[in-house]
Amino acid sequence: MDAAGLVTRTVADFVDAHLPPGAPVCVALSGGADSSALVAGALRAGLPVCALVVDHGLQDGSAGVAAAAADTARRLGASAQVLTVEVGTAGGLEAAARDARYVALDDARDGRPVLLGHTADDQAETVLLGLARGSGARSIAGMRPWREPWGRPLLGIRRTDTVTACAELGLQPHHDPHNDDRRFTRVRLRSEVLPLLDDVLHGGVVDALGRTANALQADLDALDALADTQWPAASVDGELDVETIRGVPTAIRTRVVRRWLLAVGATEPTHRVISAVDALVTDERSRGHVAIGGDPTARRVVIRSGQRLTVRLVER
Amino acid sequence: MDAAGLVTRTVADFVDAHLPPGAPVCVALSGGADSSALVAGALRAGLPVCALVVDHGLQDGSAGVAAAAADTARRLGASAQVLTVEVGTAGGLEAAARDARYVALDDARDGRPVLLGHTADDQAETVLLGLARGSGARSIAGMRPWREPWGRPLLGIRRTDTVTACAELGLQPHHDPHNDDRRFTRVRLRSEVLPLLDDVLHGGVVDALGRTANALQADLDALDALADTQWPAASVDGELDVETIRGVPTAIRTRVVRRWLLAVGATEPTHRVISAVDALVTDERSRGHVAIGGDPTARRVVIRSGQRLTVRLVER
Repeated sequence: MDAAGLVTRTVADFVDAHLPPGAPVCVALSGGADSSALVAGALRAGLPVCALVVDHGLQDGSAGVAAAAADTARRLGASAQVLTVEVGTAGGLEAAARDARYVALDDARDGRPVLLGHTADDQAETVLLGLARGSGARSIAGMRPWREPWGRPLLGIRRTDTVTACAELGLQPHHDPHNDDRRFTRVRLRSEVLPLLDDVLHGGVVDALGRTANALQADLDALDALADTQWPAASVDGELDVETIRGVPTAIRTRVVRRWLLAVGATEPTHRVISAVDALVTDERSRGHVAIGGDPTARRVVIRSGQRLTVRLVER
Repeated sequence: MDAAGLVTRTVADFVDAHLPPGAPVCVALSGGADSSALVAGALRAGLPVCALVVDHGLQDGSAGVAAAAADTARRLGASAQVLTVEVGTAGGLEAAARDARYVALDDARDGRPVLLGHTADDQAETVLLGLARGSGARSIAGMRPWREPWGRPLLGIRRTDTVTACAELGLQPHHDPHNDDRRFTRVRLRSEVLPLLDDVLHGGVVDALGRTANALQADLDALDALADTQWPAASVDGELDVETIRGVPTAIRTRVVRRWLLAVGATEPTHRVISAVDALVTDERSRGHVAIGGDPTARRVVIRSGQRLTVRLVER
């Protein structure tokens, strides 16, 4: 099978698994090889496609790149729409551009799912990116193939396949200069870390990271579901009942602790905070307190009071 | 606290958590910084220590290195014993040396636990090494702090701490030339991959990998325990009962499948084999068969027969 055929079959398999047959879809189109191949594959799989092209306005000529991508999509047989967004600066440029892009796509999709062009290479980079967070499976489980309304049909195929598919179909994808800019962590993971790891570990690293991401996603689903079954009994009037969860396995207990911290308004707790609060659950004699975030005006701490954990406000 | 104090406290905490107070222990001593610091820390924590020095006979002068390490241990106040082993070639030199070492240590320990000098740096290397296997949490959960009779008190501290501790104590640890030999995967992970990852991800990678290993170990324990509860009903006369496990979460179902494959004599099944056999469970109409290993004289395949999976022998 040629690469274009592989992309088409991969999209068709994805639709079989997750969407009604022939359902209209949006495709987030950057004009690069991955999303261009995805538009073509979705059309060849028989789906009505609306290409959504986000113009972030971050580079000179971005409007022209977006218009050209939309034109290509129309020539292939899709409808197309250019979405112009304003990118803020909160959390860094990469994160701000990403947030703005997803909001714009969600606003424009009009009830349809949005297919994204992430490949196995993107998945491998995402897993490696998560290694630095060190919060266990949650940080390294990568991207989900389908989390409504976002679909990623190409997570199982390689970037080289989308490039080849574009060549076979006579498409000339745009090359984003950001993809070579070593100031971006992702670019260095792609161009330096993954090739070195592949050399040292004798190949197959991208596929192995993809398989690990899939397995960890299944683990997370099972453990989160188990934590959900403990939750109603453990959460009492905004406090956490220690006796309910003391005897359950650590992996489930710490997930209930995390859920409780989120429920009382903490920002996403780190592994360190979860472990410290969990120690208040397991250690009968504990007199400690653990600072949590989530309130800009006061310092909030978790303490153990008898058989409950509770949050106290402390003046700054 | 100085580094020697940190090592001592770390060993004492480990003993509190896992061993009877003051229990006699063995320490696997290579003569390198990690295990030398561990011998000293265990003695300073008040434990009766027997240092077990394995002479692999792989390098010129290895007998002298082993004897010197044993002498140092005795000077510190431990008893010591040199174990001479013969290293085969099965599975490569690193694996063969490791197998021979653990067998010799187990033979010599005489009912005592054996403490090993692995540090947070070793743990990080082990996690990265597992990335290439791609079998999910099981491949990247690293080493356990305690799996009787093997204890690893130093998994939470850095190699630089053991080096500093040795200097503080006036010890002159042996530097194994294998530790600089780029033909070993572990050496390249240590000297090339980890520093690059640390640079690209802005530091903290060794600690993050250690936290992730701990969290994944807890996840594995919980999920394996849940698979164990499904096992008695799922395993019937050497066959796997499909109806018992069809409805359970993927993470638990695939673990029951793995356990069944091991029970029918397969060698450690890959993620690919487990997924293929799992598809026989979940797909009612499946007519496929999956080849498994474990028998050198015949080809063995798993097939679905009604509501059971069963193993058939096929002539080679």
